[in-house]
Amino acid sequence: MGISGWGVDEQQKILSLRCSIFYVSDGTGITAQTLGHSLLTQFDRQFIKGGRVLPFVDDVAKAVQTRTEINRSAEHDGVRPIVFSTMVNEALKAIVRESNALFLDLFGTFIGALEAELHQTAGRVRGLAHSASDYDRYMSRIDAVDFALQHDDGVTADGYGRADLILLGVSRVGKTPTCLYLAMQHGLHAANYPLSVEEIQAQRLPSVLRPHRRKLFGLTIQPERLSQLRYIRKPGSVYASAGQVRNELTGAESLMQVESIPYLDTTVHSIEEIAATVLQRCSLSIESFS
Amino acid sequence: MGISGWGVDEQQKILSLRCSIFYVSDGTGITAQTLGHSLLTQFDRQFIKGGRVLPFVDDVAKAVQTRTEINRSAEHDGVRPIVFSTMVNEALKAIVRESNALFLDLFGTFIGALEAELHQTAGRVRGLAHSASDYDRYMSRIDAVDFALQHDDGVTADGYGRADLILLGVSRVGKTPTCLYLAMQHGLHAANYPLSVEEIQAQRLPSVLRPHRRKLFGLTIQPERLSQLRYIRKPGSVYASAGQVRNELTGAESLMQVESIPYLDTTVHSIEEIAATVLQRCSLSIESFS
Repeated sequence: MGISGWGVDEQQKILSLRCSIFYVSDGTGITAQTLGHSLLTQFDRQFIKGGRVLPFVDDVAKAVQTRTEINRSAEHDGVRPIVFSTMVNEALKAIVRESNALFLDLFGTFIGALEAELHQTAGRVRGLAHSASDYDRYMSRIDAVDFALQHDDGVTADGYGRADLILLGVSRVGKTPTCLYLAMQHGLHAANYPLSVEEIQAQRLPSVLRPHRRKLFGLTIQPERLSQLRYIRKPGSVYASAGQVRNELTGAESLMQVESIPYLDTTVHSIEEIAATVLQRCSLSIESFS
Repeated sequence: MGISGWGVDEQQKILSLRCSIFYVSDGTGITAQTLGHSLLTQFDRQFIKGGRVLPFVDDVAKAVQTRTEINRSAEHDGVRPIVFSTMVNEALKAIVRESNALFLDLFGTFIGALEAELHQTAGRVRGLAHSASDYDRYMSRIDAVDFALQHDDGVTADGYGRADLILLGVSRVGKTPTCLYLAMQHGLHAANYPLSVEEIQAQRLPSVLRPHRRKLFGLTIQPERLSQLRYIRKPGSVYASAGQVRNELTGAESLMQVESIPYLDTTVHSIEEIAATVLQRCSLSIESFS
């Protein structure tokens, strides 16, 4: 073991070099963080420090401060940081770009090609993507979150007519976070309905769901994982036991097959993946721009 | 008016040319959509059609189908589409890249610079960013969403000790969506507490909040907007009236000033902007990668 040509202390220092990550934006920093994080998942994390988001860098003082912070990290880490930038303002970007860092201009890199393609000059207005500039979209998301909360866990079927989709499945399968995500990110009216033990035993779709058959989508999960999730909520309960969990899942899946309801095993999927799959399989539009 | 050198029919056709947008990914498509949408906000929407997300393009058949769909749009629109891609697999990407479109490789463009900087070869594994590969992160988000729901609207103070922050403000100011967003995106334990008319009149922090003073952050809003939001919930109510709304807001802001609680006017801010500001001003870490 070891790196030849270096003393023990030096080797230790070399192996502990880890570069800092900065996400810099004149807006929220969400876009910079999303692409930067995606890119970094392709690399070994061992030599990468945690990322820091520096949002709202929208004047000269903040740009200078950002540059100072980045340079301080470079000095402290012994290796230059990586900066993912979505800054739009050219003058402010120039200040941050002078930092001792690998500066990746996520925005500027593509703007030229888009300008040529669209025969337009870009607006260069900061932070439009996650701002409230689109009032209608804002209101529709607030409305969708309200809807998801009002129609969580089958509390009422009053709004099923207005629902874009209704998720069903046993308790703790992931219905609520998926509905909230669909509401928050896509402004969809997503209700969810927990299948009770009695409904599963009856092997028939609950009557309240029958008029909305085409809006239904099922979630299922592996028994081991469900047992774990239920144990966290109610340790030592029958609810979390292997027998109970297996019976409910087998019954729920059989019910969904009998009733021809499409369903997805969520065990190895993130909320984002579940949402993307549900949208795709329900042929729900996920227009983000119109 | 008109474009010289063209007949009336031709002019109409030219002015109605609008290019389609595709977000293509071997994963959920969230990253492609986030950056693509950010870039497009810089342009006039008039000549741009709605965007379509094509997720999970992870085999040759799906890549070929994607190319066919893009080419069909090009033919139908009379103008080639713009493709924002985060595809990782080089062979599949090559198939989609052959489409008649402006192909923007959001991923590949930066991978080379990162490989050089990190002295590593990228893993080229699809869809890692929004997958459930990070089990701990998944569980912490589920837990955070549960916490937000359990501690919504001041229903219980039991978990305030575990809270990362507690948002307070009058009814309909935007506390719930902000808490859910902080939970979903950042895995933070965010509770929220609605200030009642009595608590506002008393001009003292409710006793249940006092032990958690350093976790408090206030939200406020312009009276006109609050009146509108409350009207949607309860049309014609005193609750939505100008007098009521003005009194509550003036009192709540005065209370927050007296108690030295930082607060933000949410009127012109999106949920993402509110969240980013709260995190920054509470100095809460928003590490996305560690």
